[in-house]
Amino acid sequence: MKKIVDISWPISEKSTEYKNRKTIVFEQVKTIEKDNVRETILTFHAHSGTHIDLPSHMIEQKSSEIITLEKLVQVPTCILDFSHIEEKVTQTDLEQYDHLITKGVSILLKTRNSNLSFDAPFNSNFVYLASDAAAYLVTKEISLIGIDYLGIERNQPGHPTHKLLLQNNIVILEGLRLQGVTEGKYLLTCLPLSVSGIDALPARAILEPIV
Amino acid sequence: MKKIVDISWPISEKSTEYKNRKTIVFEQVKTIEKDNVRETILTFHAHSGTHIDLPSHMIEQKSSEIITLEKLVQVPTCILDFSHIEEKVTQTDLEQYDHLITKGVSILLKTRNSNLSFDAPFNSNFVYLASDAAAYLVTKEISLIGIDYLGIERNQPGHPTHKLLLQNNIVILEGLRLQGVTEGKYLLTCLPLSVSGIDALPARAILEPIV
Repeated sequence: MKKIVDISWPISEKSTEYKNRKTIVFEQVKTIEKDNVRETILTFHAHSGTHIDLPSHMIEQKSSEIITLEKLVQVPTCILDFSHIEEKVTQTDLEQYDHLITKGVSILLKTRNSNLSFDAPFNSNFVYLASDAAAYLVTKEISLIGIDYLGIERNQPGHPTHKLLLQNNIVILEGLRLQGVTEGKYLLTCLPLSVSGIDALPARAILEPIV
Repeated sequence: MKKIVDISWPISEKSTEYKNRKTIVFEQVKTIEKDNVRETILTFHAHSGTHIDLPSHMIEQKSSEIITLEKLVQVPTCILDFSHIEEKVTQTDLEQYDHLITKGVSILLKTRNSNLSFDAPFNSNFVYLASDAAAYLVTKEISLIGIDYLGIERNQPGHPTHKLLLQNNIVILEGLRLQGVTEGKYLLTCLPLSVSGIDALPARAILEPIV
């Protein structure tokens, strides 16, 4: 049987939320006792848990927000382990992997963020992707960049990391959980909900080892 | 490039909801103009759009609700075309495909439901799976049954179709869109959000033709 590694952030009312906002609510509206069925209405911020940032999250005019599913199903992916880094992943850090960062590939950044539990208080000192690293990934024409926290950027006025990536159609995948995954090559499948007209897509993401 | 067929029900504030309830709300809480970022909080019924019914939807005591992802990723699947049927798919209808309905397989039912647009008023006369057909699928030990409407059952007191399937660990996948798909064999991948503690899992579902 195939081996599948779930790298998704569990969503529950306990889950860590960005800057400790509290948006996740599961409201049980029918119960077995009274209604013979159990039903729940979900409320959560579109940027909760594992999700794709869409261009409209940061860019005023962006004509198309269609992410073709072919870019998200069984795509060649490298996990790069930056667990030793304290603050941010820079271009210099990425250049060590220059031979792996090739056109059309997906890159997932494993950092010390993955050591935090899914329901820990929000850590405002999370490791992020520096803007020079984003510019480097644009020149390399990668397809997707993922990170193991609820944001890919902090402490950069004007959000240059987000804007560089989104303006160049690089998919941003946030909210991954990579603690159990070792550096190497995998196939990534990330299926977002079919939601239209908003600025992020909640998603499930899995890896399959390349054998 | 691989061919992927999206069979998911789009979720928007216009989408058809079960019995015309109105639960889907996209609340824009930040705007580019005021906040430099656009952010949205989603609210929707867990049984909106494409979703998996969990045992706790119908059964009071169900020890485990873990659906292993191996049952949902690239699984051998038959689309059966019952577009000619007016009311319900019965055991007799399924028995025509007895040779295809084998242990561990997934079955998706294409019916006239797929002709309805994703935002049409709720159709209370949708084609459903009769309880004798559910019992037949239990004896065949299939893995998953999907249907192209927001429910798999109507007009059956006590919900025997749901209960037979759920008690026997057959995954119920509701809210598919199969109009553009022809009868035959495919690989199905259905990734639900990583949500725990509720009665349904919103999901994205795709097919890949077997070549």
